[in-house]
Amino acid sequence: MDSIIMIEKEWPELNAPILVEGLPGVGNVGKLAAEHLVEQLKATKFADIYSKFFPPQVLVDDNGIIRLVCNELYYVKRNGEAPDLVVLIGDYQGLTPEGQYELSYHMLQVSKRLGVKRIYTLGGYGIGRMVENPRVLGAATDATLVNEMKEKGVVFSKGEPGSGIVGASGLLLGLGKSQGFEAVCLMGETSGYFVDPKGAEGVLKVLSNILKVEVDYSALRDKAEQIDALASKIKEIEAPQEPRKEDLGYIG
Amino acid sequence: MDSIIMIEKEWPELNAPILVEGLPGVGNVGKLAAEHLVEQLKATKFADIYSKFFPPQVLVDDNGIIRLVCNELYYVKRNGEAPDLVVLIGDYQGLTPEGQYELSYHMLQVSKRLGVKRIYTLGGYGIGRMVENPRVLGAATDATLVNEMKEKGVVFSKGEPGSGIVGASGLLLGLGKSQGFEAVCLMGETSGYFVDPKGAEGVLKVLSNILKVEVDYSALRDKAEQIDALASKIKEIEAPQEPRKEDLGYIG
Amino acid sequence: MDSIIMIEKEWPELNAPILVEGLPGVGNVGKLAAEHLVEQLKATKFADIYSKFFPPQVLVDDNGIIRLVCNELYYVKRNGEAPDLVVLIGDYQGLTPEGQYELSYHMLQVSKRLGVKRIYTLGGYGIGRMVENPRVLGAATDATLVNEMKEKGVVFSKGEPGSGIVGASGLLLGLGKSQGFEAVCLMGETSGYFVDPKGAEGVLKVLSNILKVEVDYSALRDKAEQIDALASKIKEIEAPQEPRKEDLGYIG
Amino acid sequence: MDSIIMIEKEWPELNAPILVEGLPGVGNVGKLAAEHLVEQLKATKFADIYSKFFPPQVLVDDNGIIRLVCNELYYVKRNGEAPDLVVLIGDYQGLTPEGQYELSYHMLQVSKRLGVKRIYTLGGYGIGRMVENPRVLGAATDATLVNEMKEKGVVFSKGEPGSGIVGASGLLLGLGKSQGFEAVCLMGETSGYFVDPKGAEGVLKVLSNILKVEVDYSALRDKAEQIDALASKIKEIEAPQEPRKEDLGYIG
Repeated sequence: MDSIIMIEKEWPELNAPILVEGLPGVGNVGKLAAEHLVEQLKATKFADIYSKFFPPQVLVDDNGIIRLVCNELYYVKRNGEAPDLVVLIGDYQGLTPEGQYELSYHMLQVSKRLGVKRIYTLGGYGIGRMVENPRVLGAATDATLVNEMKEKGVVFSKGEPGSGIVGASGLLLGLGKSQGFEAVCLMGETSGYFVDPKGAEGVLKVLSNILKVEVDYSALRDKAEQIDALASKIKEIEAPQEPRKEDLGYIG
Repeated sequence: MDSIIMIEKEWPELNAPILVEGLPGVGNVGKLAAEHLVEQLKATKFADIYSKFFPPQVLVDDNGIIRLVCNELYYVKRNGEAPDLVVLIGDYQGLTPEGQYELSYHMLQVSKRLGVKRIYTLGGYGIGRMVENPRVLGAATDATLVNEMKEKGVVFSKGEPGSGIVGASGLLLGLGKSQGFEAVCLMGETSGYFVDPKGAEGVLKVLSNILKVEVDYSALRDKAEQIDALASKIKEIEAPQEPRKEDLGYIG
Repeated sequence: MDSIIMIEKEWPELNAPILVEGLPGVGNVGKLAAEHLVEQLKATKFADIYSKFFPPQVLVDDNGIIRLVCNELYYVKRNGEAPDLVVLIGDYQGLTPEGQYELSYHMLQVSKRLGVKRIYTLGGYGIGRMVENPRVLGAATDATLVNEMKEKGVVFSKGEPGSGIVGASGLLLGLGKSQGFEAVCLMGETSGYFVDPKGAEGVLKVLSNILKVEVDYSALRDKAEQIDALASKIKEIEAPQEPRKEDLGYIG
Repeated sequence: MDSIIMIEKEWPELNAPILVEGLPGVGNVGKLAAEHLVEQLKATKFADIYSKFFPPQVLVDDNGIIRLVCNELYYVKRNGEAPDLVVLIGDYQGLTPEGQYELSYHMLQVSKRLGVKRIYTLGGYGIGRMVENPRVLGAATDATLVNEMKEKGVVFSKGEPGSGIVGASGLLLGLGKSQGFEAVCLMGETSGYFVDPKGAEGVLKVLSNILKVEVDYSALRDKAEQIDALASKIKEIEAPQEPRKEDLGYIG
């Protein structure tokens, strides 16, 4: 069995396409953002990627039909001179370092075939505490890109992220750089404790401005409210219970 | 050394055979069910599958003779138009994700050679509590199969199993689907705390009805009684001991 | 780099050689026994086996000279019709299941080249408590061998070892059986808590009787005494201290 | 994707070059020493080594530019008959035993192409307590080298290091020995609790004397002072707090 199997439903002819990657990671920020983009832009799926670097698992939908865990490629054709888009989303990243390298390398090969020159990878930047207004931090393959991103409101902050970027969002830049891709990682601040649609909205706002696409955020905001409600509930349960008055009658 | 080695004792000519898989897993439900089927139908072993994805282990029988851990293939020839059967049982599943994918992929290659079109995988669905009348849940590769199974009493329940199906019982469906197999996973409810012959009986009753084979369940029921007795004993030991009366003489 | 590299110092012409394996394992029983055999018979080393399945480690001798961890092959030529011997000892077994399979498979290939027909693997059988007179349990590839071993005092006990035999001592039998080798595993009972020269002596006594070699056990017995002394010391430290008399002056 | 990818910026013609290796390890002694050597000798980088045996990670510099984690090769050309130098430094060692073996094997292949005959590997020797004047221990591929090193002040101490040498500093000797390299490992004593520039200075003093290079240690000493200050602070925090006098007013 090949380590990576790509099944193409069609092979789109695209105009100077830009790749956007959003796979599971810290707070699932990148995954939520990229999936929301796919829904908002009514992107068309054109390929499934299966791999023995993913877990040996099938998912079951509401009708009882299974599908093997995978990564998926979508495209969006746009009018005029606007570059077309390719979006990579999926159930998992590679389980091992080797798997991570092989899958990112494979994706860059596919990107070349599609004519991709520029890549945006989306991720979360875990800061270990709740954050009201998440910043969007950046990292890029060269200085020109850094400046371009600064103008779009991306924050480049010395020493952040201190430990670098791990996984596909990092490797597509790291491996892509030596293969001539220009690539940017956009990281939304997130506590890292919960799936974080608010961080995803932050990242997607910056990205939609860069790509010049219109995005409605109401679905992401609904999810964010649900998560907030859940977080409050958990906080309540975990908080040290203040004694209720009636318990203290003996004091006076 | 090849990663997977199949040693064929014979190669049966089979009539439209159906593959039944039952390997170790949650509550060993699938393994118990498939082994019971092999015994009841007096199936004939025709191949051993060894692999470096299995543990480096030999088992020792009551006479002191060893055998390397393996998976085994049996066949059952049936009269008239009834489709023949192939049954896959074994000591272990692959130890790593890669091993899982390679072994399931190999099994599908073998299935093609045997002329298999349909696959039933058997497993347990762990629900974390004891269950008196275990349901048999299902998942399948397409909607027609789902409907066919519903008519046979298989339960398709939205959101169950929530985390999908892991291991050979899932992969044979997931990898098989894209190779044109029609495949169903039958999952017997089980606590997941014990080896569960009762769950196995539930699964096998549904399967034997589908396959139109006669199965005597007394051996499985004997095993179930032994497990029940054991479970009661453990419960007793773990339960907080009520003080015996004679210990309390000093109270009054 | 090849996964396994064998460096041959010479290639002996041997008369119907028997392979004896003793690698690290439970109580290091097999390793101690095989190393003692090598010393007692003044066996000649003829090959080193290096592998990336071993740890990435060098050992340093008393003169500061390093050597890469490895397995080693020795031979013993014997007079007349007595079969010659090949002994496999080493620093480690393979670290992964794949490594275990590859290394045992490789050893069987080497055994064929050497003309080996029969294999004795040596190991420990951990029973979780100290044992005064360790039995030597056996397992073998066929019933004739089992009977032959019973006559030599090897114990074949139903249900022991319950979990089979893991590692090289098991795989050489399991993989060897299908390749036409006749093979026996001799397991010396051991607590499993300490390196156990007493268990090794038990195994070696049975083996030397089978092979008709003379072995002096004094070095093994010295080691056993050292271990016993160490074990007593540890027991003392761990035991709840009985109060010394002078500490109890206040009582009376 | 190849397991190891070396990207050469240039390929230097070197005069009887000596390889010096300093990768992350105990106390980062070897890494600090080799990096300091590169800075002091204004060595020229000529190759980057990427590998799927490293973590799937990019690092981000102060300007927001990423680079894939890697190992790096530098050279130093020297006047007259002094042998030229090649220095190997990097972010990581291989993550798995297989990765360790493959990367060291690759480095030896590269060393052959460069004409290297002698190798010095640098590492730390963790002793589990703070040490004022760290010794530099040695291990080597042959007795002549051991004697040569003793004359340079390297300590060869029976039974140290007891567990051998793990990782690249060991493997370059272990694999190199059988390929005809003469190689020495220099290990600076270190607590193992902190990154240890003092241990690195000790190692580098010995090495610079051997290589006849001039090294200024002020930068390493500054780092050592910073670490010492940090260590004192941590000690203070962890120490049981003596009650301050004013807290005890109620006593009397």
